[in-house]
Amino acid sequence: MTKTNPGRFFGDYTLGQVITHAVPRTLSGGERALYHALYPARHAMASSDEFARSCGLPAAPFDDLAVFHTVFGKSVPDISLNAVANLGYSEGRWLSPVWPGDTLRATSQVIGLRENANGTSGIVWVRTVGRNQHGVDVLSYVRWVMVRKRGTGPAPAPQVPDLAQAVDASNLVLPAGIDFSHYDFAQAGEPHRAADYAVGEVIDHVDAVTIEEAEHMLATRLWQNTAKVHFDVGARPDGRRLIYGGHVMSVARALSFNGLANAQMIVALNGGTHANPCYAGDTVRAWSQVIDKAEVAAPGVAALRLRLVATRGVAGALRGADGKYLPEVLLDLDYWVLMPA
Amino acid sequence: MTKTNPGRFFGDYTLGQVITHAVPRTLSGGERALYHALYPARHAMASSDEFARSCGLPAAPFDDLAVFHTVFGKSVPDISLNAVANLGYSEGRWLSPVWPGDTLRATSQVIGLRENANGTSGIVWVRTVGRNQHGVDVLSYVRWVMVRKRGTGPAPAPQVPDLAQAVDASNLVLPAGIDFSHYDFAQAGEPHRAADYAVGEVIDHVDAVTIEEAEHMLATRLWQNTAKVHFDVGARPDGRRLIYGGHVMSVARALSFNGLANAQMIVALNGGTHANPCYAGDTVRAWSQVIDKAEVAAPGVAALRLRLVATRGVAGALRGADGKYLPEVLLDLDYWVLMPA
Amino acid sequence: MTKTNPGRFFGDYTLGQVITHAVPRTLSGGERALYHALYPARHAMASSDEFARSCGLPAAPFDDLAVFHTVFGKSVPDISLNAVANLGYSEGRWLSPVWPGDTLRATSQVIGLRENANGTSGIVWVRTVGRNQHGVDVLSYVRWVMVRKRGTGPAPAPQVPDLAQAVDASNLVLPAGIDFSHYDFAQAGEPHRAADYAVGEVIDHVDAVTIEEAEHMLATRLWQNTAKVHFDVGARPDGRRLIYGGHVMSVARALSFNGLANAQMIVALNGGTHANPCYAGDTVRAWSQVIDKAEVAAPGVAALRLRLVATRGVAGALRGADGKYLPEVLLDLDYWVLMPA
Repeated sequence: MTKTNPGRFFGDYTLGQVITHAVPRTLSGGERALYHALYPARHAMASSDEFARSCGLPAAPFDDLAVFHTVFGKSVPDISLNAVANLGYSEGRWLSPVWPGDTLRATSQVIGLRENANGTSGIVWVRTVGRNQHGVDVLSYVRWVMVRKRGTGPAPAPQVPDLAQAVDASNLVLPAGIDFSHYDFAQAGEPHRAADYAVGEVIDHVDAVTIEEAEHMLATRLWQNTAKVHFDVGARPDGRRLIYGGHVMSVARALSFNGLANAQMIVALNGGTHANPCYAGDTVRAWSQVIDKAEVAAPGVAALRLRLVATRGVAGALRGADGKYLPEVLLDLDYWVLMPA
Repeated sequence: MTKTNPGRFFGDYTLGQVITHAVPRTLSGGERALYHALYPARHAMASSDEFARSCGLPAAPFDDLAVFHTVFGKSVPDISLNAVANLGYSEGRWLSPVWPGDTLRATSQVIGLRENANGTSGIVWVRTVGRNQHGVDVLSYVRWVMVRKRGTGPAPAPQVPDLAQAVDASNLVLPAGIDFSHYDFAQAGEPHRAADYAVGEVIDHVDAVTIEEAEHMLATRLWQNTAKVHFDVGARPDGRRLIYGGHVMSVARALSFNGLANAQMIVALNGGTHANPCYAGDTVRAWSQVIDKAEVAAPGVAALRLRLVATRGVAGALRGADGKYLPEVLLDLDYWVLMPA
Repeated sequence: MTKTNPGRFFGDYTLGQVITHAVPRTLSGGERALYHALYPARHAMASSDEFARSCGLPAAPFDDLAVFHTVFGKSVPDISLNAVANLGYSEGRWLSPVWPGDTLRATSQVIGLRENANGTSGIVWVRTVGRNQHGVDVLSYVRWVMVRKRGTGPAPAPQVPDLAQAVDASNLVLPAGIDFSHYDFAQAGEPHRAADYAVGEVIDHVDAVTIEEAEHMLATRLWQNTAKVHFDVGARPDGRRLIYGGHVMSVARALSFNGLANAQMIVALNGGTHANPCYAGDTVRAWSQVIDKAEVAAPGVAALRLRLVATRGVAGALRGADGKYLPEVLLDLDYWVLMPA
């Protein structure tokens, strides 16, 4: 009997199935430092214990995307090892901050299945939940992937989950104690409050980063993401290592500091598309558009719904005349952040 | 007088000599995080404080090879700065786990000397011991290196130590408190116990990693290993930076998770050969063979003796018809691990 | 209104102006581990809590240049985003050690302004101060940069600060408790005391490092330095990423261990010139010259004033017949260190 993990194929998933992902992970100041070395991250809340305390938190929490990557990484061997494509995200919510010393584990439940017409693959929807050592949920999100079929068994009854277009602002979970009443704009780096942003406004984040192979592999390993395509030049016919889509997310989010320095915490992931593959040598820039604004029940805090686009091209350009993503667009992310009202 | 360290030559070693290696090192969660960024390490014991506690330890210990590299690195300026080749390892035993906050130092004793027939070099055997800040030995191993002679002095009386072919299972030192009675196979990632492995069984670890210059240099510096050949393109006639052999060890050990996820802790190094040099751009894969099994005196724990091979080629291939290592083989390591019985 | 930071231009600075730099940063064992992975740093004081305690400190402080880079990085968005050149340093003093857990912030005061004759740029002198979470100053230094003018407004009255040629030894600030009476030379790595060095003596540090793009970008991001030229191949006409000058400082300082292992702590920066640009692929070596020696008021401690030169060439060579830096010289640094008397 082979002892290695071949990954699951489409026929291995059943509706309602709960999969326990392996390898719990304790995070420390080491992972935080690496996050700052790998990404040009400058949001003050995740950078400074003092700043976080001035906002009502006990210390600087881990960057929200570091939590996402850690939980996502745990799910890869069970969900996307044989995935043809990572198709989308929905209903993502950060439920409790993660601190140095916390240990994260994850599970996923299959909430949808639909075989493709060609009979060689299918789409699997899972709701993945990350939990800390106290059994408290820290993150929950839905993602769907296209997975190869092994053999030619019968198709399951198609079951497509009914997913929200976006997390409703009333369902956003705020970190306990958060309070922006005494927010220090000088230390945060910019003077703009939520009130200063207009729905529809586009922000060009100006800066750019040219990515190296060593960087994206260090990052992807840090999250214990084992997908071969990121590490092994022999894993794809073109001999190129595909950059983990989450790496592009973090690059873009960090670049967005310049213009959105006060968008301190991500609290929901409404959707996301990895529009085109990213490779080492690409120079990535980012732009954002304000989609919505909402009041939330914490002193001085507001929520902003943002589109964050990572691109090899210019700010503002997203889709061609055919309605498809332009070839230079890498990522189209839709999320809610907390900022001073 | 020159103030820099020229390294020792063959004539500088005398039998019984004890060399104190410089630069004690305090390890923290930072080194642990870097280990996970540099290698695709997933063994749960070194990844999660919670998992380690469920196995009777007070917290997640440092990866055993991180301890090895730290101790080895201290010895490089005194033992292998003028080494022509790192010839072998023997009688290695991990004696006590290392935790974040511990400070390691190291000494080596010369236990063997033999000048080569050509009179221009000789072999030096040393037993290197790493100790923590409490004076407790954490690791002890023998290695032997070929060192250049300076000038043409008389040869010392040849003295070749009598080394064990392998550490006897009765001499394995178990971490205090270790107990696999309540081992969580789902969190560990695989269901296989020691009883599920057969002596002689070969495991192809499937995954592969293409190595970059920045990665192996970051790793080698992290262990304060100063050998010029790893960092300076001018140090070798071919202008290539040689990858530290220990980097290949850690890559292979981390890859071996896939098929040996429950081989949680390395407790002995029976032998090891760096069969061929490894360079950036190489795609490294790994395979293991079960050499032996043994009972040990801890609840639910067994020992497995494994051969771990790192290769640029296929699993299972090791030597050619001439009995020599195949050119694609990088490392042939022989070690004992602890896993659920 | 644009929400991104365009950086300040020459006309935006006024004499006496105090600028609060954004993004406080909490440092941990993670940043310390990364420092050791990025640079071949081996000075025992910053490597080992035990060694630091044997020298009267409570634990291993952060490497002095890590503190410098952190404070410097904070100042980049306000001081040097539109800088044409980083011209010099003066009157730098480390005022209190920084420990894991400390949070640093920084401010700069404009102490000099002089428009260039061409009317398109000017020189700005600032005194930058880093402070910890207790409001204690940890570092203070002067630097001056050439900054572009925007438009053609009138020139301010020229005001050139009167800067010390070097920090006087009587003004060096020693870490509280420092005591080298029981200094362990074997653990530190070399036997040489301050008394063993002669003024004028040149030390070739022998080792060399070939630099990779990923390494200098990881380092520069770690210090939250946002200057585009280090990250974006499109930021300069030649398409090359310029290596942050501070990266070269740290490479050279770490290499200087070999010959100056006991030069444990940098306490003053008298001056420094980034003589030529450094790029990935460069092989950097270092040499030092002893400029001065001084007694200081701590048991067993002396101060050494050193020139540290980073070069792509040979030790000892600095300037050509024309008095200009040779093209292979990268850095000429002048600083005071503490070592056993």
